[in-house]
Amino acid sequence: MTGGPIHPVILSGGAGTRLWPMSRALRPKQLLPLVSELSERSMLQETVARVSGPDFGPPVIICNDEHRFVIAEQMRELGIEPRAVVLEPAGRNTAPAAVVAALLLIRDDPDARLLVLPSDHVIEDVERFRAATALAAKAADDGALVTFGIPPTRPETGYGYIRRGEPYPGIDGCYRIDRFVEKPDPETARGYVDAGDYAWNSGMFLFGAGTLLDEAQRLKPDMVSCCRAAVANAREDLDFLRLGHEAFVAAESVSIDYAVMEHTRRGAIVPAEMGWSDVGSWSALWEIGDHDAQGNAVVGDVMTLDVRDSYIRADGNLVTAIGVEDLVIVAADDVILVASRDRAQDVKKMVEELEGRAVPNTTCIPACCAPGDRTSRWTAANASR
Amino acid sequence: MTGGPIHPVILSGGAGTRLWPMSRALRPKQLLPLVSELSERSMLQETVARVSGPDFGPPVIICNDEHRFVIAEQMRELGIEPRAVVLEPAGRNTAPAAVVAALLLIRDDPDARLLVLPSDHVIEDVERFRAATALAAKAADDGALVTFGIPPTRPETGYGYIRRGEPYPGIDGCYRIDRFVEKPDPETARGYVDAGDYAWNSGMFLFGAGTLLDEAQRLKPDMVSCCRAAVANAREDLDFLRLGHEAFVAAESVSIDYAVMEHTRRGAIVPAEMGWSDVGSWSALWEIGDHDAQGNAVVGDVMTLDVRDSYIRADGNLVTAIGVEDLVIVAADDVILVASRDRAQDVKKMVEELEGRAVPNTTCIPACCAPGDRTSRWTAANASR
Repeated sequence: MTGGPIHPVILSGGAGTRLWPMSRALRPKQLLPLVSELSERSMLQETVARVSGPDFGPPVIICNDEHRFVIAEQMRELGIEPRAVVLEPAGRNTAPAAVVAALLLIRDDPDARLLVLPSDHVIEDVERFRAATALAAKAADDGALVTFGIPPTRPETGYGYIRRGEPYPGIDGCYRIDRFVEKPDPETARGYVDAGDYAWNSGMFLFGAGTLLDEAQRLKPDMVSCCRAAVANAREDLDFLRLGHEAFVAAESVSIDYAVMEHTRRGAIVPAEMGWSDVGSWSALWEIGDHDAQGNAVVGDVMTLDVRDSYIRADGNLVTAIGVEDLVIVAADDVILVASRDRAQDVKKMVEELEGRAVPNTTCIPACCAPGDRTSRWTAANASR
Repeated sequence: MTGGPIHPVILSGGAGTRLWPMSRALRPKQLLPLVSELSERSMLQETVARVSGPDFGPPVIICNDEHRFVIAEQMRELGIEPRAVVLEPAGRNTAPAAVVAALLLIRDDPDARLLVLPSDHVIEDVERFRAATALAAKAADDGALVTFGIPPTRPETGYGYIRRGEPYPGIDGCYRIDRFVEKPDPETARGYVDAGDYAWNSGMFLFGAGTLLDEAQRLKPDMVSCCRAAVANAREDLDFLRLGHEAFVAAESVSIDYAVMEHTRRGAIVPAEMGWSDVGSWSALWEIGDHDAQGNAVVGDVMTLDVRDSYIRADGNLVTAIGVEDLVIVAADDVILVASRDRAQDVKKMVEELEGRAVPNTTCIPACCAPGDRTSRWTAANASR
């Protein structure tokens, strides 16, 4: 049982190709003020702000080398000094990132608890989020690896689901995990929503550093060895911690779910409605945006005439629309996207086609991508998770 | 009977708000290479090139003062030296422009024949156009005021129609005019198409300078007086002829049709299929454009995924579209238009709304228009016809 602060570990490795063209290799979605227009805060900043205060230690941020200065600047704007900004030489998904963070934190505090958070999610109800965190911390102190579940509000086929099991002894609102399920087909998803004991897998976790390392060591010993070597060979580089290149690149690219959560017997889940959205596509931004009387969510300099239920975003230019509905229109500096709202997920395909080829699990170097002089500007790097 | 060259009189006063945002006050549609992509020729250049050769004299171009250098440069590119570039101090529709041209041409040649042509039409079949011109010239030499009619291919409600009367004596393919009719409703338009003796009013004319001046003098003496004064007070300004400001502005703003053709007994019509389009809207550009297998007409840097029957134009940027159909997407530098193809006519409304108010029959001075720092760039001036 510990009572110290919870250490936020913010994962900021992704590129979010589905929010292209706003989200690109050099300015991924979590670093953009896509959601909170008024405050002009990026999702990364919102995420960090959400876990500031006496209950939390300063954040550990794990990110792509290319984004380090933008991230440092965004933290400076918030007046927050991270405990560490850890630079990944390449994306290796979430498990190595969490293990590295655990290795760093356990050095100073053998009872350190990690709250692992993606940086590109929206959470509107911060109080409920914090209440869920307090609940999860109790289970973590009991040796559990806790995941946060989002009660599904629609038969979403783009997320994984978690079925809860028995109530966690002595912690009201926490459950054992019955099983993880992959992204379902629409009918199966409908069944999950109706069943009532399934939750969306939010990708947020809370666990003791020691607990994670024990289970990861047991289940993925090679990955943990690579992570240990990457930390041992890390070097301080001004305000950043640069992981050992060779060792980290050798680590298996795998998510926390696949590597640990789906196999451990110590898994637990705290289901909590907290106004969560993964902002995974433009249609998600339409859903969480403010709507005018015609159902349009509009950002920037936009004029409409008989337009309905559309998401329209102008970034420094003027967008005009006449007599259309259910569209996504996003105008970046030099790239314009017009898509049917129900095809918003296919933006990913378009980006892959632009790249000329899909580049799995590596950071895409602009020059390697599609031909054309502006390629480097619209190429999306691959995610590290 | 004369046998000398025909003098093309090119009217280039319009602004074409329905092709906004490509067409704007300072670069109206006739000065843009909207149609002939490969040659990069503007519609004005195409129009002038169409009437070059031994049968034609050098063109008289009548235009807005603001466009004079662009027009001079476009003529230089073609290697054509106009007989005159006449600058209108303000748009006064087509009748004063034609009368001014007649007054200028009759000075040197009492038998001068004028071929009056809008500069913003597409004519694909130049041979038929020239054959129709030769036919019309015969009737003009007989004292007729000849208009060119386009056999309607659809019940278009955006054009005026002309019903032909008796065959013109001795000139096969030429007819007397029975009557002019205004833009009809769809049912009436259907009737016109089915009747077979109606043609679209193309706005192209051929007549002797003396014939026009006689009839205009009889029907609109005040307007002719103003035009005479404007020519008398005109001054040569480098390569341009600047009409007398006060006199020309005092002239009634009226079309050749209203002022003369609908009232004269000397009217004639040569109906001729010649691949004509007035390029009056983006949907017209879709119609005359080359289509890919999915029915899209695409210009510039465009990528599509499951897109059908759409007009997509990228001007220096990249436009991507996913899962949409029947759209017009036009991306200018700083303004993007997305419209349902069947609402393409409403672009005009959008421009008026941008202007803050409609400015009928005056050249719109940018600073007078809607608020906003970029207004001057997207304000459409009003047409001079």
